[in-house]
Amino acid sequence: MGEPAIERLRSTVVSKLTDVPKRILIGRALRSDRLGETLLPKRIALPVFASDPLSSVAYAPGEVLLVLSIAGVTAYHFSPWIAVAVVVLMFTVVASYRQNVHAYPSGGGDYEVANTNLGPRAGLTVASALLVDYVLTVAVSISSGIENLGSAVPFVVEHKVLCAIGVIVLLTLMNLRGVKESGSLFAIPTYVFVAGVFTMIAWGAFRGLVLGDTMRAPTADYVIKPEHQGLAGFALVFLLLRAFSSGCAALTGVEAISNGVPAFRKPKSKNAATTLAMMGLLAVTMFCGIIALAATTDVRMAENPARDLFHNGVPIGEDYVQNPVISQVAEAVFGKGSFLFIVLAAATALVLFLAANTAYNGFPLLGSILAQDRYLPRQLHTRGDRLAFSNGIVLLAGAAGLLVGIYGADSTRLIQLYIVGVFVSFTLSQTGMVRHWNRLLATEQDQTKRRHMIRSRAINAFGAFFTGLVLVVVLVTKFTHGAWVALLGMVIFYATMTAIRKHYDRVAEEIAAPEGPSDDSVRPSRIHSVVLISKIHRPALRALAYAKLMRSDSLEALSVNVDPAETKALREEWERRGIDVPLKVLDSPYREITRPIIEYVKGLRKESPRDAVSVIIPEYVVGHWYEHLLHNQSALRLKGRLLFTPGIMVTSVPYQLQSSEAAKRRARRQAEWNAPGSVRRGPAQVRSKESTEHKS
Amino acid sequence: MGEPAIERLRSTVVSKLTDVPKRILIGRALRSDRLGETLLPKRIALPVFASDPLSSVAYAPGEVLLVLSIAGVTAYHFSPWIAVAVVVLMFTVVASYRQNVHAYPSGGGDYEVANTNLGPRAGLTVASALLVDYVLTVAVSISSGIENLGSAVPFVVEHKVLCAIGVIVLLTLMNLRGVKESGSLFAIPTYVFVAGVFTMIAWGAFRGLVLGDTMRAPTADYVIKPEHQGLAGFALVFLLLRAFSSGCAALTGVEAISNGVPAFRKPKSKNAATTLAMMGLLAVTMFCGIIALAATTDVRMAENPARDLFHNGVPIGEDYVQNPVISQVAEAVFGKGSFLFIVLAAATALVLFLAANTAYNGFPLLGSILAQDRYLPRQLHTRGDRLAFSNGIVLLAGAAGLLVGIYGADSTRLIQLYIVGVFVSFTLSQTGMVRHWNRLLATEQDQTKRRHMIRSRAINAFGAFFTGLVLVVVLVTKFTHGAWVALLGMVIFYATMTAIRKHYDRVAEEIAAPEGPSDDSVRPSRIHSVVLISKIHRPALRALAYAKLMRSDSLEALSVNVDPAETKALREEWERRGIDVPLKVLDSPYREITRPIIEYVKGLRKESPRDAVSVIIPEYVVGHWYEHLLHNQSALRLKGRLLFTPGIMVTSVPYQLQSSEAAKRRARRQAEWNAPGSVRRGPAQVRSKESTEHKS
Repeated sequence: MGEPAIERLRSTVVSKLTDVPKRILIGRALRSDRLGETLLPKRIALPVFASDPLSSVAYAPGEVLLVLSIAGVTAYHFSPWIAVAVVVLMFTVVASYRQNVHAYPSGGGDYEVANTNLGPRAGLTVASALLVDYVLTVAVSISSGIENLGSAVPFVVEHKVLCAIGVIVLLTLMNLRGVKESGSLFAIPTYVFVAGVFTMIAWGAFRGLVLGDTMRAPTADYVIKPEHQGLAGFALVFLLLRAFSSGCAALTGVEAISNGVPAFRKPKSKNAATTLAMMGLLAVTMFCGIIALAATTDVRMAENPARDLFHNGVPIGEDYVQNPVISQVAEAVFGKGSFLFIVLAAATALVLFLAANTAYNGFPLLGSILAQDRYLPRQLHTRGDRLAFSNGIVLLAGAAGLLVGIYGADSTRLIQLYIVGVFVSFTLSQTGMVRHWNRLLATEQDQTKRRHMIRSRAINAFGAFFTGLVLVVVLVTKFTHGAWVALLGMVIFYATMTAIRKHYDRVAEEIAAPEGPSDDSVRPSRIHSVVLISKIHRPALRALAYAKLMRSDSLEALSVNVDPAETKALREEWERRGIDVPLKVLDSPYREITRPIIEYVKGLRKESPRDAVSVIIPEYVVGHWYEHLLHNQSALRLKGRLLFTPGIMVTSVPYQLQSSEAAKRRARRQAEWNAPGSVRRGPAQVRSKESTEHKS
Repeated sequence: MGEPAIERLRSTVVSKLTDVPKRILIGRALRSDRLGETLLPKRIALPVFASDPLSSVAYAPGEVLLVLSIAGVTAYHFSPWIAVAVVVLMFTVVASYRQNVHAYPSGGGDYEVANTNLGPRAGLTVASALLVDYVLTVAVSISSGIENLGSAVPFVVEHKVLCAIGVIVLLTLMNLRGVKESGSLFAIPTYVFVAGVFTMIAWGAFRGLVLGDTMRAPTADYVIKPEHQGLAGFALVFLLLRAFSSGCAALTGVEAISNGVPAFRKPKSKNAATTLAMMGLLAVTMFCGIIALAATTDVRMAENPARDLFHNGVPIGEDYVQNPVISQVAEAVFGKGSFLFIVLAAATALVLFLAANTAYNGFPLLGSILAQDRYLPRQLHTRGDRLAFSNGIVLLAGAAGLLVGIYGADSTRLIQLYIVGVFVSFTLSQTGMVRHWNRLLATEQDQTKRRHMIRSRAINAFGAFFTGLVLVVVLVTKFTHGAWVALLGMVIFYATMTAIRKHYDRVAEEIAAPEGPSDDSVRPSRIHSVVLISKIHRPALRALAYAKLMRSDSLEALSVNVDPAETKALREEWERRGIDVPLKVLDSPYREITRPIIEYVKGLRKESPRDAVSVIIPEYVVGHWYEHLLHNQSALRLKGRLLFTPGIMVTSVPYQLQSSEAAKRRARRQAEWNAPGSVRRGPAQVRSKESTEHKS
């Protein structure tokens, strides 16, 4: 199948799904508890997808100032230029991803774009980067949220790590329980946050420009002792690049919308692209506004405030808590402890926690896509499966908690790890898009379409170049500051996933069915059935009845003589009841159960190697885990051993005890659980043929 | 069946087993690794069974002095009288258990004696007491061993808890791995210990009486400040009774031989009785010798040495380590740091650790007997089963470790908990023996035998009375000192075992097979087989082949459409290969697997409720746990859910991958594991009919 044909097939599949959502909607109408999963209008899609990128303006401007402070307060004059560079980069990335959204209306995330266009290695690299990113999104967002909350509630900052771990635990439990999401859950804090920042910028501009007030940040009187006085030349350029790298934290999460196109109302791609543009515009305005206000109100921040910040000529010491730039600016504009200051701090923290929550959705979802491509255990593949999500959620929470613990919930130190992964996926995704357009251009004849494609390719090419450049800058300027940790994480993910894929490939080769209509080597000629009996009770009688119905070539009941008295009683009752199945009793001098049965079955196989043996085990089904400890344990162990014996099939005939009703209800409740993040994923989607074709 | 008939049957069963061990030996000869399990001559049986009771002379004399010291050093003059009381008690208990040994040659332990003769409540009380005792044997013996070792190696006493926990961990690992026991492992340290103590007594007597040396214990110059000066009347009697209670620690473990009769050479009962007598004689000689030497060498001990011991008028303070009486005496007799002193300290510690090790054998063994009577999970029943032993060993180690931690590995504080359980089982066992003889006397006509029985009854009656009296004394004098903890432990064991038994009884009633040759309510009329297929590979083809051989009434293959492309490929290959089983594909809009299958199967059952459904699942068998994570997870979950659906049988058709060889070898290695304590248990034994008859 040539590539254009594949592309056409993909479009057909996609359009079929997007044009005929009726079947899906009807399927859904059956389950009223899922009715909430409707398509999103732009005004809701914006907060749902943008909590991550928008919330990063809470820490990104501060990071720029922190790095600049190394060269002393005079270097703060470079901050507008760094803001301009970040804005240019933001527009580039937004413009690039608008192309992704149009090209992959099925919601091709960076992994799929790289995988499809650049091959599985690039795809896996992007996947590793994204997995690391999700962990860092949780760690950074929660740490920063705690710091923002702490600017209003000092207790929180005094017990930073504890509070951050507390929030992680809370989010984890919420997501494990499958708390139902709704658009408004995202919309309210996000819009309050955006409105708060804009009010702050506007009111600050009004006070400064119209009223002529002198607004002073709480740190305005502090003096920064530069770590490197009078930097110039290469060293200064390096520092500016590092400051720029830090500012790039504002771009994290921009790619989220490109994963979520199917969740938009029609026309999906157009709406998604518009939302992406809106988000970019909001983000840069807020970013620049905060930088400008910080400059106006003389915010002073230092990487090591205890050592490098001086107040009245004295170092401020270890007890000093450096508040985030957004809270310092809010204090200057609104006044400390004022109503608006508190509201903005709360909204900032809430939006940051929501941003962390997006990772709880994204991580298992990416896991399921990777599982489909056999880079992760198969069972993660099933969408909406509770266990699959639980594993992902717990892994994510554990890794994020570990990072928060190691780095003391210090957002500044965590951000050093953050940006590498983001730009790895940006760069590879954009490079993949260039390949995508090249491929389409090779066959496309329509000149209008070609013009469009050439334009898109140019945008993506510039995007790939620029983000690649930033990636190099980030790597160079941040490697020793922590980027190596992120790279190490990526390598670990990459190696693990490669090993898993290799295992699956090896197994697939081993079990591949040989060609030809029949294959005698795997087909036995007769079946000998053995029913295991310990006592005559209802489960045993049921197992016997089922075994008889199965009409195998021969059938016998098997018991192990552990206690001669019990065995004698069994024999007598067997005869008395006139059960028409021969009863065989195995001796067991060591009172073992498993070994005699295994040896007997092996003996049967040795006698007639072409026969298969069917071992039928009556099993109790109980309702509570502690009851499970009291039953079926020997059956379980026996089954475990029997599986290793070739030519065996093991049949459980369950007998439901009354107490099993409780477990049944519990199982049903679990089956009705809602996978978190459903609101941002849209209706069940089928991945394009294009990506599945790469699997085998 | 009347009681004498039962008794006769019991004897027949027992004699059959003891007279014809050939079958067992032949069975054993097949497995050369078990040849070590031969019958024990008396000279080996003594150390194997007596390490526990003999080792208690390392701490019991000291406990007497400790309590007496409360009334000041003058009260030490009562120590010979207390020794006499302990000796009388020891002879009583030994004489009583000699009757048990003769009456129950099959090795009826206290639990069985009480259970058979006094009913299940008494049996369960004894069992709870024994379980608590085993835990305390480990805690006390190891703590005391550490203290004895510490008298030669100060480091050990400085890190008492750590070292004690270390020994527990070591013993636990040894027992979990199933290190092979041999008689000499027990014999050498026990005989060295016995010889060392006797040498010490003899050399001490020689030096004191013949040479006229003045031997001084290291604490001889210390002055004891009595907590209660000039105790008299009731208070003094109470104190003496408490000292006596503490001295009774010397009796712990005497009952061990009565459990181990089957391990003796013939004539088993006679040899066991002789060994018991030898053990009693050794124990009392050593106990009295140490008490006498302690008095001669002026050993001074106090319950709170830091506060109540004075040296040159100054309290000796917190840093003082009070060495065990046996080590103080050895120092006086042999000289500090002399070769014999070191050897005795090492042998004492080793024997105490061996004593702790006996609990590692006894605890799981008692567990298996209790499991046979359905007071504990069924799977513990299987003798020699590794998992059963592991659970018991880990539980024992955990409980003992907890006690050691809580009580700071202080043997004196732990002993307060110890003696209650011992005397609960002594008293109930002896009372049971009186009943036993009464029952036999009711029918016995032979006058010689009657005279024997009446004599035995008198001994057991005196034993029951005396041990009962001691139990009351122990309870009264020690309740607040820690005996309540042991009682609480017993109550917890009792309640748990009662609850488990109730559960089993309830289930047994629920599943009891109704009478009558056929029972239509549990017998379906037809079987509909469903083979689950995800892809066409060898495991799937094998499952299909097996399913066809089973000749059920109808057969179909079932697949879930999670990915339309894959499903299409499956359908095409199905047709191309011309597989003559209809393939049914279920739609799954949410990419779930379990739910559509469950619902389909339920639908089948609803259509024809009298039919059974056989669900056949191809399964991979892999070799490593991490590979297991990569396979079969959806199959496992599906099986779990299917078990709750009535009228279903679930069949696994395993396909062994190459890597499964590793797991097979591992499983075989585990199956060849040796249960610890085999040397003291003798050949596989069948419990007497008498006890099993009480079960239902």
